[in-house]
Amino acid sequence: METAILLFPVVTSLDAIGPYEVLHRIPGNNVRFVAQNAGPQPDENGALQLTAPHSFEDVTSADILLIPGGYGTRALTSDELTLQWVRKLDATTTWTTSVCTGSLVLGAAGLLQGRPATTHWMAYNELAAFGASPTQQRVVFDDKYVTAAGVSAGIDMALELVIKIFGSELASAIQLGIEYDPQPPLDSGSPSKAAPEIVELVRSVGADAQANS
Amino acid sequence: METAILLFPVVTSLDAIGPYEVLHRIPGNNVRFVAQNAGPQPDENGALQLTAPHSFEDVTSADILLIPGGYGTRALTSDELTLQWVRKLDATTTWTTSVCTGSLVLGAAGLLQGRPATTHWMAYNELAAFGASPTQQRVVFDDKYVTAAGVSAGIDMALELVIKIFGSELASAIQLGIEYDPQPPLDSGSPSKAAPEIVELVRSVGADAQANS
Repeated sequence: METAILLFPVVTSLDAIGPYEVLHRIPGNNVRFVAQNAGPQPDENGALQLTAPHSFEDVTSADILLIPGGYGTRALTSDELTLQWVRKLDATTTWTTSVCTGSLVLGAAGLLQGRPATTHWMAYNELAAFGASPTQQRVVFDDKYVTAAGVSAGIDMALELVIKIFGSELASAIQLGIEYDPQPPLDSGSPSKAAPEIVELVRSVGADAQANS
Repeated sequence: METAILLFPVVTSLDAIGPYEVLHRIPGNNVRFVAQNAGPQPDENGALQLTAPHSFEDVTSADILLIPGGYGTRALTSDELTLQWVRKLDATTTWTTSVCTGSLVLGAAGLLQGRPATTHWMAYNELAAFGASPTQQRVVFDDKYVTAAGVSAGIDMALELVIKIFGSELASAIQLGIEYDPQPPLDSGSPSKAAPEIVELVRSVGADAQANS
């Protein structure tokens, strides 16, 4: 089994690493990190580089394709080489997936037209502009297209994917292996749960960050 | 504010990246990834390299020190250069923290003697061998020493730390920013919740992996 995870400059590290920690625990799953230019990719914060050993030419098919998010996705939505590679891989996949604003790249590649899908809660309008129907679910399955909400949602998505492909026993074992028994000390992880002033605060900080990225 | 995150060969990526995605969102927090030898560090699976731009000589103090886990921690527990650096940083920190088997490194450095602490559920005995009292809590605070359970627990730990240092408003905003509204599709994230046969399966796979690492 082959999984390809796209990396790019200004990626959000957890979008990629959360589902990676689930998916690489599938026995026999060969996970490959791929970038347009193989090598270190600076993340959104700039403190870390994630190295993609493979370039687009090296990886021409996959059973699972995963596109993480990050402000760097905005440049990708108009990068023809990336969109061509995403379409080429998608023609070979059993599952084409995204986390956070990774769905904007799937959208720009024309793969979410008319489909329910999700993204980071601040990016619903951007997703809709690509012809998708944004939903507020944490994980959205539509045929082989699986999109997850912001950043940390990729862990839940990957576990759901393991259940679909291999059943609950393997998914349970992986969940136990990564001790995924979440106990957030607060309950403000979605705009429907957080206080309105917190939602506004995050929205304004996010808008600034995007303007500067 | 300065945060130092240790990287090393055969690190578990999510141990480092989960709390990193929380901590780098603290305004004014300068996060530095540090390794004995600066440069790319292969992770536990081998599919990914995380690059540490800084070596031990570059980083001599921090407000928060974070030690992630992974099978590579076993080599660190007898690596004097690493243990000296950990002790040196600890002498400057406000908070000294670990995720998963990162606590074994704190233990080997002599910092958890007589303290309640936690680690991955498969490593309680190893932690006890360093004089700590293993507990089954997901996050354990003892003075300035904060230890988290396996892999994914670092996200919860980092949010609790933000609450302690800056209060709930900032922690809520960060939680919303990373859309941390966990919805695991199964409830097997701790040995007390998973079926006994799943616990045994993971224990045997873990023992094999450790023997081969």
